[in-house]
Amino acid sequence: MHVTEIETPAIAVDLDVFERNLARAADYAKAHQLRLRPHTKTHKSSVIARMQLELGAAGLTVAKVGEAEVMLRAEPADLLVAYPVIGERKLRRLLEVARHAQVTVALDSLEAAQGLSDAAAKAGMEIGVLVEEDVGLGRVGLTDSHQLVTLATSIAKLPALRLRGFNFYPGQVKAIDADGLAKFHAVNAALEETATLWRAAGLPLEVISGGSTPTLFHSHELPLMNEIRPGTYVFNDRNTIESGAATLADCAAHVLVTVVSTSRASGMIVDGGSKTFSSDRLSTGGEVTFGLLREAPEAKFVKMNEEHGYIDLPAASRHFRIGDRVRILPNHICVAVNLHERVYGIRGDEVEQIWEIEARGKLQ
Amino acid sequence: MHVTEIETPAIAVDLDVFERNLARAADYAKAHQLRLRPHTKTHKSSVIARMQLELGAAGLTVAKVGEAEVMLRAEPADLLVAYPVIGERKLRRLLEVARHAQVTVALDSLEAAQGLSDAAAKAGMEIGVLVEEDVGLGRVGLTDSHQLVTLATSIAKLPALRLRGFNFYPGQVKAIDADGLAKFHAVNAALEETATLWRAAGLPLEVISGGSTPTLFHSHELPLMNEIRPGTYVFNDRNTIESGAATLADCAAHVLVTVVSTSRASGMIVDGGSKTFSSDRLSTGGEVTFGLLREAPEAKFVKMNEEHGYIDLPAASRHFRIGDRVRILPNHICVAVNLHERVYGIRGDEVEQIWEIEARGKLQ
Repeated sequence: MHVTEIETPAIAVDLDVFERNLARAADYAKAHQLRLRPHTKTHKSSVIARMQLELGAAGLTVAKVGEAEVMLRAEPADLLVAYPVIGERKLRRLLEVARHAQVTVALDSLEAAQGLSDAAAKAGMEIGVLVEEDVGLGRVGLTDSHQLVTLATSIAKLPALRLRGFNFYPGQVKAIDADGLAKFHAVNAALEETATLWRAAGLPLEVISGGSTPTLFHSHELPLMNEIRPGTYVFNDRNTIESGAATLADCAAHVLVTVVSTSRASGMIVDGGSKTFSSDRLSTGGEVTFGLLREAPEAKFVKMNEEHGYIDLPAASRHFRIGDRVRILPNHICVAVNLHERVYGIRGDEVEQIWEIEARGKLQ
Repeated sequence: MHVTEIETPAIAVDLDVFERNLARAADYAKAHQLRLRPHTKTHKSSVIARMQLELGAAGLTVAKVGEAEVMLRAEPADLLVAYPVIGERKLRRLLEVARHAQVTVALDSLEAAQGLSDAAAKAGMEIGVLVEEDVGLGRVGLTDSHQLVTLATSIAKLPALRLRGFNFYPGQVKAIDADGLAKFHAVNAALEETATLWRAAGLPLEVISGGSTPTLFHSHELPLMNEIRPGTYVFNDRNTIESGAATLADCAAHVLVTVVSTSRASGMIVDGGSKTFSSDRLSTGGEVTFGLLREAPEAKFVKMNEEHGYIDLPAASRHFRIGDRVRILPNHICVAVNLHERVYGIRGDEVEQIWEIEARGKLQ
């Protein structure tokens, strides 16, 4: 199948770039003796997850039990649900998953741990636990190391749980510039304080799990961290470029769209909008545009409706015609992939792979 | 199944409110002799589309050929693809759809009309055409009535097409206040000019199709319009309330979420983010919040990540606990529904219907 036979809008992945991204992260993790546990939220494909495992990933990360169920198809030895699992039904499903892979849950409350313990004990099983530290994002996790170790101490006493360590997500580091790196290195102090108190409490500390795509290749600068969970690195996107962690040449996934109208005075309309790209703005808070038109980088993707993308074109770029197919690099590839049923892997001009986005919509 | 057995995050539709919304629009259209052709983009369910047809809808509207294929399950006599269909493969699929329902395409260029004509002639079929007028949104359509009628005259000469009239979308009218109504009534002048020139050119004028949910119950104030295409009215959302076209009591669909963390100093985290709600902001450009927490309207849904919703709570509202289930009214229900595999129809506390979101991801 030739790339021009893909009906638009659709996501096409340059396999050469994608494979280079996978290998680079795998090699980096090996070189620095870091366990790589990719977050599968970006691709939501068990086939890609399997590739990551074959390249040496120590396990997989998911956000939801529904994603864990899908990712069993990749036959991971080890799954991290990096999200508190709350509620009896979900816990029952989680324990079913745990019959096929070692499962660990990241959580930040005794309530979540107690529910997990009760369900696991009832099933006669053991589930791993990481306690989440908030190192600056202000999302989930405990900021205070003393409180965190107090919680960990309580969790260690609960039946049917195996306390493995603690985890964090440095989402506040949006750019690898002097300010971002200072923020990232500041995480060290928090990790050290927690680890010291943790060990002093006599708790087992097998895992300190962190990482993100922007900070991926600086992971070794947090010497205590021994596991990283990047997701976006497989494809990269405008956000990754803005963060300084990738170049345009590292971006593997584009949205193919077709020009459907040139009536607009200031430009053209393409056949993808918020139901194709998502309406995510740039995470760094830059200009409000929704993608980079590769065929005319001076164009601005200024507005979206559900199925319409508004592209403003300077006069010199008004050479696009109805029916032209163009490539757009999205702001945020994870939410874009999630809107598609499948993604096309291309090499040169040929479609070599079609990946179903198996875990999209597996929100529960 | 009790409503508490629905795993979160999930969309629950209050069937009493939903049915009232359907009936109100159907009654309004009948009272004003307007053909109601609901846009199915909001619910993406052939089952709901069937209900709309049974209540007297004259046909259905879709944006994409993939949606048209799905909506054939509702057995509509008549389908409008309110979007230019570009490219041979899509045109072939469109003609296959046209074997099962009368199909009309809205378009704004001779290129789009020529492609449609060629494909239809080759298949020995006839496809309806509406020419799109831009009445102020600046998206697709021609602004100039003379140019529009010139295009219509050319289209009338193309084989295998049946010119049926013209269409427009008053998306620039975001609120039913004095300013919005003035903008809406100003559309009359544009329609009159086009209709006068159209008739003077001796072209058939069976359909003038317009409408939106914000302007739905003012449709009769555009006396030339004889067909309306609202979508969101079935559920309504925060945008509809902001527009003044619905009250909270008219909002049928909420996202059910569970509190998963209360570690945040300023509030709590719920188990739905941009992959559950979409990251759409309010269309009226109001405060940047992502939904209305029904159990605490004073709370602010201030931020999202993919699977995390950040809810800020004033001190007096800090009574939520991990595991609590709450209802959130989303900004934009169409893009939220599109992220879910199914929607639950509830009456009182019982789940009475489960609708598959059959057309989600049918982007092509």
